[in-house]
Amino acid sequence: MKTWTALGVCLLGLVATGAQAQTIYPLTRAEILAGSKFDFKVEFPGAPAQGAVKITINGQDPASVLGQSAKFVEKEDGGDHSAYWIRGAQIAKPGAYTVEASLGDKKATVQWEVFGTPERKAKNVVLFIGDGLSVAHRTAARMLSKGITEGRYNGELAMDDMPHMALVSTSGTDAIVTDSANAMSAYTTGHKSCVNALGVYCAKNKSTLDHPKVETIGELAKRRNGGMAVGVVTNSEIEDATPAGMVAHTRRRADYNDIVKMFHDVKPDVIMGGGSPNFLAKSTPGSKRTDDEDYIKKFEADGYKFVSTKQEMQAAAQAGSSKVLGLFNTSNIDGALDLKILKKGTVSKFPDQPDLVEQTKVALDVLSKNQNGFVLMVESARIDKYSHSLDSERAIYDTIMLDNAIKVAKDFAAKKEDTLIIVVGDHAHGVSIVGTYDDETPGNQLRDKLGIYADSKFPNYPAPNAEGYPEKVDVSRRLAMLFTAYPDYCETGRPYMNGENVPTVKAADGKTYVANEEYCKEPLAARRTGNLPLESNSGVHTADDLVLTAMGPGSEQFKARMENTRVFRVMATALGLGAGQ
Amino acid sequence: MKTWTALGVCLLGLVATGAQAQTIYPLTRAEILAGSKFDFKVEFPGAPAQGAVKITINGQDPASVLGQSAKFVEKEDGGDHSAYWIRGAQIAKPGAYTVEASLGDKKATVQWEVFGTPERKAKNVVLFIGDGLSVAHRTAARMLSKGITEGRYNGELAMDDMPHMALVSTSGTDAIVTDSANAMSAYTTGHKSCVNALGVYCAKNKSTLDHPKVETIGELAKRRNGGMAVGVVTNSEIEDATPAGMVAHTRRRADYNDIVKMFHDVKPDVIMGGGSPNFLAKSTPGSKRTDDEDYIKKFEADGYKFVSTKQEMQAAAQAGSSKVLGLFNTSNIDGALDLKILKKGTVSKFPDQPDLVEQTKVALDVLSKNQNGFVLMVESARIDKYSHSLDSERAIYDTIMLDNAIKVAKDFAAKKEDTLIIVVGDHAHGVSIVGTYDDETPGNQLRDKLGIYADSKFPNYPAPNAEGYPEKVDVSRRLAMLFTAYPDYCETGRPYMNGENVPTVKAADGKTYVANEEYCKEPLAARRTGNLPLESNSGVHTADDLVLTAMGPGSEQFKARMENTRVFRVMATALGLGAGQ
Repeated sequence: MKTWTALGVCLLGLVATGAQAQTIYPLTRAEILAGSKFDFKVEFPGAPAQGAVKITINGQDPASVLGQSAKFVEKEDGGDHSAYWIRGAQIAKPGAYTVEASLGDKKATVQWEVFGTPERKAKNVVLFIGDGLSVAHRTAARMLSKGITEGRYNGELAMDDMPHMALVSTSGTDAIVTDSANAMSAYTTGHKSCVNALGVYCAKNKSTLDHPKVETIGELAKRRNGGMAVGVVTNSEIEDATPAGMVAHTRRRADYNDIVKMFHDVKPDVIMGGGSPNFLAKSTPGSKRTDDEDYIKKFEADGYKFVSTKQEMQAAAQAGSSKVLGLFNTSNIDGALDLKILKKGTVSKFPDQPDLVEQTKVALDVLSKNQNGFVLMVESARIDKYSHSLDSERAIYDTIMLDNAIKVAKDFAAKKEDTLIIVVGDHAHGVSIVGTYDDETPGNQLRDKLGIYADSKFPNYPAPNAEGYPEKVDVSRRLAMLFTAYPDYCETGRPYMNGENVPTVKAADGKTYVANEEYCKEPLAARRTGNLPLESNSGVHTADDLVLTAMGPGSEQFKARMENTRVFRVMATALGLGAGQ
Repeated sequence: MKTWTALGVCLLGLVATGAQAQTIYPLTRAEILAGSKFDFKVEFPGAPAQGAVKITINGQDPASVLGQSAKFVEKEDGGDHSAYWIRGAQIAKPGAYTVEASLGDKKATVQWEVFGTPERKAKNVVLFIGDGLSVAHRTAARMLSKGITEGRYNGELAMDDMPHMALVSTSGTDAIVTDSANAMSAYTTGHKSCVNALGVYCAKNKSTLDHPKVETIGELAKRRNGGMAVGVVTNSEIEDATPAGMVAHTRRRADYNDIVKMFHDVKPDVIMGGGSPNFLAKSTPGSKRTDDEDYIKKFEADGYKFVSTKQEMQAAAQAGSSKVLGLFNTSNIDGALDLKILKKGTVSKFPDQPDLVEQTKVALDVLSKNQNGFVLMVESARIDKYSHSLDSERAIYDTIMLDNAIKVAKDFAAKKEDTLIIVVGDHAHGVSIVGTYDDETPGNQLRDKLGIYADSKFPNYPAPNAEGYPEKVDVSRRLAMLFTAYPDYCETGRPYMNGENVPTVKAADGKTYVANEEYCKEPLAARRTGNLPLESNSGVHTADDLVLTAMGPGSEQFKARMENTRVFRVMATALGLGAGQ
C-alpha cells in the first residue's frame, strides 16, 4: 500500500485559493478514492469566455482523464465568474495528479492524491459517532457508569477497551470550527468542506443542490463490492446533518425535504431516527413537506417495513425484514436520562421509543443478512445537543447510551472478527470536569459549593443499574462538568429534572438572546454574562482535536494525528472500495 | 508477560477504607514493581494495643513476606490510632497478594498485584511532561507552529507523529481532580496518592516527611541495572512538584528545602531548572533556606558542574561533564514567548537562560555517557502555569517549545532505536479553541469580535520562524482559546504583551480574590464573574483524561485507557527494573 505522507503542496494551495485566482474543486491536497465519483469544477473570476481558459490534469485534457465530457458555463448563475464542469468524474488509476487552470497570466495549480485500496480486509464497518463527543464526556461517562474508588475506575467503557487510537483534526475548508455537516461529510466522503455543507464542495453556485458533489460511503457501499447493505441509525431527526452525511449532497444542511429524497435515492437498508414530518405529504397533518410526496409510502413501495415504535421495530427484525424505515418521533428521540430515568421530554407523547442500543441491535440483525457486508453508522446525537443546551447530565447519560450501543457492536463483531468498529466524535465541545458540587459545603453562592482539587471529593451517584445508568442524578455531590463558551444564562449547578435545559430566550429585539430567567430564580443560581456573540442561544463547537478509538480489521491504520478525512480513507481501505489496483 | 487485567477487588477496597475500618497502605489494587521499596503501614482506629490486632499477607506474617522487621506504634503522633509499620519493604516474587488486617470483628482486606518485568527492551526512557497539557493546547500549538490551509494542517508536531497513543486517567486517592504532585507521583512511583503528596501515601502522620513512602523511578534507576543515569529537566523551579516527583517523598509539595536535600540524596546526574534560592545557605542574600547548608557547594563537592547560564551549560556539556546542576533563575525560567519574542518576564534580569530545547540537548549529551542507560524527565512546566493565569498565548508557545524538545529526543533516539519516548500531560486544564477573535469584525463588545463556526476564519499569525514560533502574536485575527473555570477577572481577548497575565488581585479581606482592574480598563475588556470559589486566584485543573503519545521500545504497551500509574509500569517494564523474574 502507498504511504500516506501528505503531499508538500501547501504553497501551491495558497496560490490556488488567492482572492483573484481561479478556484479548482476538489481543492488541493484532496485524497480521492480511485473509482469514486466526484464533480470537477473550475471557477474563473471575471467571467471569461471558454477560449480564454486552459485546463489540464497531468498535462492532459481533463475530459480524457476524468472519463466524462466537460461543460463550460459563462457567467454561471448570472454571476461574475465562468465555470468549467465535469460532473460524475472518476479516476481509476491511483497516483499523483496535478491540475492546472490558466486564465491569461494567472495559473492556479492543485495536487490530488488518488488512492487505491489493497485487498479487502473487513466485511463490515460500524462507525459510531458521538456527536460532539469530547474527552470530558467520556471521562464523565466512565465515572458515572463504572464508578471510581480511590482514584481508580472500577471498569472500562466499551469504547475505552479498543486497541487503536488516533487524534482527529476537524477544521473545515472555510474555518477552524466545523459544524456537524462538514464534519460528517469529511468522514463519509474523504473530502473537507465548509460549514453547513454535506457531500459537496462549497463553490459559487446559487442553488444549494448544484455545488460540486463528492460520493458518500453510503453510495459507494451500495455501488461496489457487489452491493453492500447500508444502515443509518440516530436518535436525532434522520434528516439532521450527521445521518444525512451518509447520503446527501447539499450546500445547506437545512434542506430536510431534499435530504429525505436523497435517502430514498440511495436507499440505505436501515434508516432509523426521528424526524417523521419531512416524510409526510404536505396534506398530512403535521407534515413539513412542501410537496405531495409521501415518502413513507414510497419506501414501503420499495420493500421497506415502516415502524414507528420500539415494539414494531423489534417485530420487524424478528419477522426477517431486510429493509427497515423507523421514525420514532416527530423531532429527536428522547435521550437516555429522559427515556430511562426521568420520563421527561416527549416520553409521554412517544411512550415506546427505542434507545440507541435497541436500534443498533436491530440494525445489526437486519444488515447482517447481506452476504456482501454492510456499512452502519450509529449516531448518539444528543451528546451534542445537550452540550449546546449546557445540560451536562443529559450529555453524560447519552454518552453512556452510546457506549452501550458500542458494546452491542463489539459483541456482534466478536463472533467473526470481520467488522471494523470506529468510535469518534465529529467535533469537540468546550467541556471539562472542574470538580464536584457538594450541597454539604457551606456557602450561599453556587461557587462556594464547587469543590476543586482535594475538595473535589468523589461524587455520590448510586451504583449504576444493569444498563450502566445511575438511577438518581440529583445527588448531593455531583460532577461539575462545565462549559467553556456560552450565551448569557443562569447556571444552577444542578441537573435539570423537569426536562432539557433551555439556557436562553429570545430578546425583545428578535435577534439576540438573553438568559432564561426561569433558572435565575433557582436557589444559588449564578448569572453568567456570555462570552459568545449576542446572537448565540447556546454553547458552541470547538476546534480541539478528537480522540478516536477503533478495533477490528483495518483499525491499525488509526494512529497518531489524522485529518478527519482519513476516517473515510481507512474505512474505504478496509472495505476495499477503491478501483484500479 | 502477565496480562494487566485489573483485579476485581473494588468492593474489598471500599470495605477497607470505610470510616471505621483500619486502613492499609499501599491501598487496594496497588500494582507494585517486584523488588521496589515501599513502606507498609496499617492504621488502626481507636489506638488499640499490639496484641489486639492481627495482620497477614497471603496468610503469612508480613515481616517474612516483606523482608524487614515490623514496628508497632500505639497512639501514633499522640493521635487516636495505632500504626503497624514495615518500612523499606520489598517483594521479589510477582503475583497476587492479599493483605488482611483484623481488629476485633473488623477485618480490612486489600489486594496488591506485584508485577515483574520481562527482559529489558529499552536502554533509555525520556518522559516528556507537558504540565497541564490538554488537547486544545496541542491543537493550538499545531495551528501556530505548522499553519493550516483550507482546513488541513501544513505539518505535524513531533508529538503527533508517534505510533502509540493512550488515554490516561488522573484522579487521585482523595479526589477526582489531581494536582501536579500526586499526578507526577503516579508516573514516577506507580502508586496513586493525594493532592500535594510526592512519593508517599497520605496517611495520618503529623510530619509531612513520615508518611508511607514508595520508591521513585529516579531512585530505582540509580539502584538497578548497574546504576543508570537520571536527568531532571524543567523550566519551573526545580523543587516544584513535577521535577520533585522524580526523587521526593513528602506529604507536602511545598517542602522545598527538604526536596533539595532529596535531590542531593538521589543525585540525578542532570538537574536543571529554576529555583536557586532553596540551594543557598540562609546567610546568602536571596536564600530561602532555613539552615546553613549550601547545596550548590555540596553538589559541587560530589562532582557536579554547577551552571547558571545557557553559555555555562553548553560549555559544561562540551567539556564532557558527567554531572550537571543548572539553576538558571531564582524563580521559574521564562517561557518561550518571553524568551524568544517579547523579552518580558525576567528576561532582562536573567538574559542568558536556556530554553527547554537547549536544556534537553545538553541533558541527552551528558546522560548518554552512562553505558547503563538513562531516565530523563523533561517538563514544559509553564503550559500549566500560563493556563492557571489564563494566558493562552504563553501556554501555546510553551507547548511549541515542548514539541521542539521532543524533536531533539526523537533525533537522538533515531540513531539507535533504544529509547522509549513518552509525551503526556500530568492533568488537564479546561481549555478549548472556541473560534477566532477578529479585530475587523464590527461591534463594541469583545463577544462581538468572536468568530464562531463559519466565522471562525483562519488566524493570521505570520508563518512560523525556524523554531516554529510565529514572531508576531498580537495579530488582527487570533485564536480564541478560552478557559472553562476562572476567578473574577477581565478578559481582554488579546495577548498580554507586557508580561504574563495576572487575572486577579487579593481582595481587601486578605483571603479572596477579585479581578485585576488593570485589564478591565483595556478596550473591549469583558468583566467575568468567576465560577470558582472566591479563594481562587487563577484557573484550575480538571479531571478530564489526557492523551499520551509514545514511541520506541516498550511503547506498544500504551493503548486504550490507562490509569496514570500505568505510565510507571510501562517505563519500569521497558527498562526491566523489576526483580524476581
